[in-house]
Amino acid sequence: MGVGLLGGSLGMAAKAAWPKCEIVGYGHRRSTLDRAVKMGAIDRAEEDLGKAVAGCDLLVLCTPVGVFGQLIHQMKQALRRGVVVTDVGSTKRSVVRLAEAELARGVHFIGSHPMAGSEKRGVEYARADLFSGALCITTPTKRTDEKALAKVEGLWKAVGMRIARLSPEDHDRHLAAVSHLPHALAAALVTMQEDAALGLAGKGFLDTTRIAGGDGALWRDILLDNADNLRQSVSKLREKVTALEMMLYRKDGEALARWLDAAARRRGELLARKLREVNPD
Amino acid sequence: MGVGLLGGSLGMAAKAAWPKCEIVGYGHRRSTLDRAVKMGAIDRAEEDLGKAVAGCDLLVLCTPVGVFGQLIHQMKQALRRGVVVTDVGSTKRSVVRLAEAELARGVHFIGSHPMAGSEKRGVEYARADLFSGALCITTPTKRTDEKALAKVEGLWKAVGMRIARLSPEDHDRHLAAVSHLPHALAAALVTMQEDAALGLAGKGFLDTTRIAGGDGALWRDILLDNADNLRQSVSKLREKVTALEMMLYRKDGEALARWLDAAARRRGELLARKLREVNPD
Repeated sequence: MGVGLLGGSLGMAAKAAWPKCEIVGYGHRRSTLDRAVKMGAIDRAEEDLGKAVAGCDLLVLCTPVGVFGQLIHQMKQALRRGVVVTDVGSTKRSVVRLAEAELARGVHFIGSHPMAGSEKRGVEYARADLFSGALCITTPTKRTDEKALAKVEGLWKAVGMRIARLSPEDHDRHLAAVSHLPHALAAALVTMQEDAALGLAGKGFLDTTRIAGGDGALWRDILLDNADNLRQSVSKLREKVTALEMMLYRKDGEALARWLDAAARRRGELLARKLREVNPD
Repeated sequence: MGVGLLGGSLGMAAKAAWPKCEIVGYGHRRSTLDRAVKMGAIDRAEEDLGKAVAGCDLLVLCTPVGVFGQLIHQMKQALRRGVVVTDVGSTKRSVVRLAEAELARGVHFIGSHPMAGSEKRGVEYARADLFSGALCITTPTKRTDEKALAKVEGLWKAVGMRIARLSPEDHDRHLAAVSHLPHALAAALVTMQEDAALGLAGKGFLDTTRIAGGDGALWRDILLDNADNLRQSVSKLREKVTALEMMLYRKDGEALARWLDAAARRRGELLARKLREVNPD
């Protein structure tokens, strides 16, 4: 469902892991579907949603968060009993709530957030190793069927991902802080610059704002869907920035150095942990 | 003066460009000076400031911004007429003001900000190509001697840098927006995270916060020295974030997508410009 960067990469990676399975791609644009077939991202292309989902064992929604509602509503009649459905969205509360409310008893939905991707979009950037070594968060609930969960997590493991389980609520709260706020800030940082200042931007500024290069419509959906958590994260950041302003106002060099060193230490620990995850030895 | 990452790299690069010149390093720690000699970063090491500067044609202060005042005060008697002095500090108003006030008429000071470096520090990370292709901002004033300016800019060009001239005031204002604020924000972003959220950090978060890994004492000096501009930049950012909060509050998806797309476009233009600078063809 949706053959873009994520959907296309998932098709390639799943095919590499499970050569015998048939991968069906659904989408609106014939040119995208044709390209996906040509690239080996999908085995068969369908423009008809009913035909696309009929006979599926495992269905992955790879569209922007904003169209999940419509898609689930349109497909629900066509899904057969026992099918397992998941998604790749960056927010989890709304899609899980929606799917559990709309889908029939025998259809199993589990939210997934594979934390891979790039600021690029489109199947032309798809690659089989996109997910390799990255983290996938699954968000089971009280209603989750254990076998269906194992099936979804099996897919992510097969394409090389590590798994973390969180409730949809914890997922959205943490992601607001560690992903959605940084994105919004990067956009604000780019937007606020005078042209003359932007001309002086170094490698640091480019790195800091890389994520602001992402697709606007995609991120609009994410930020709107997680607006309550994002606003809480903004408040938390504002406290830190206000504390910084006080240190500057008081010319409190000792407190400022402590604050900066603590941040550098925390970033260093994070980097070391990430490197261990990629190279466990 | 100061044989760390920048001073050491400058020594190596200058030696490569001008094999016949003698490079003298001044510092407090014998072990650092010895290592600098061994690495070929300096030809001669001096622990005595008077001896270090005697006979120098061109003197580059490569210490943290916070010790410039002390250093200039201590060396001013030992400088001979006609010597040209510059620095590598990330703020320019205070050092230019100080140098122009303290140094004798026949001693020429020009502020420099070579925009190269890394979050690493120490001569062990020095490399001859650190400056290659990067931008160096020089900050001449009404009192600047043209020949001395040409000499300083000649050094930066010799080690591979492009030159931009700005007033010390414009330099500090623009750098607050494009460098010091991003650094402070990266530190705030790392500091505000719960451990559980940090565990979910992806590549985007690591990139966004890379600059927060920098040395606390070094950045304390920079942020304190440029506190007035930094506070103005914080205000400008706050306006953008408040506008974002209003869009979220109103669920104004259209405005939000426009805002995010504008940021992505601006970042894309910046990236294209930077790539052209590195590969002019």
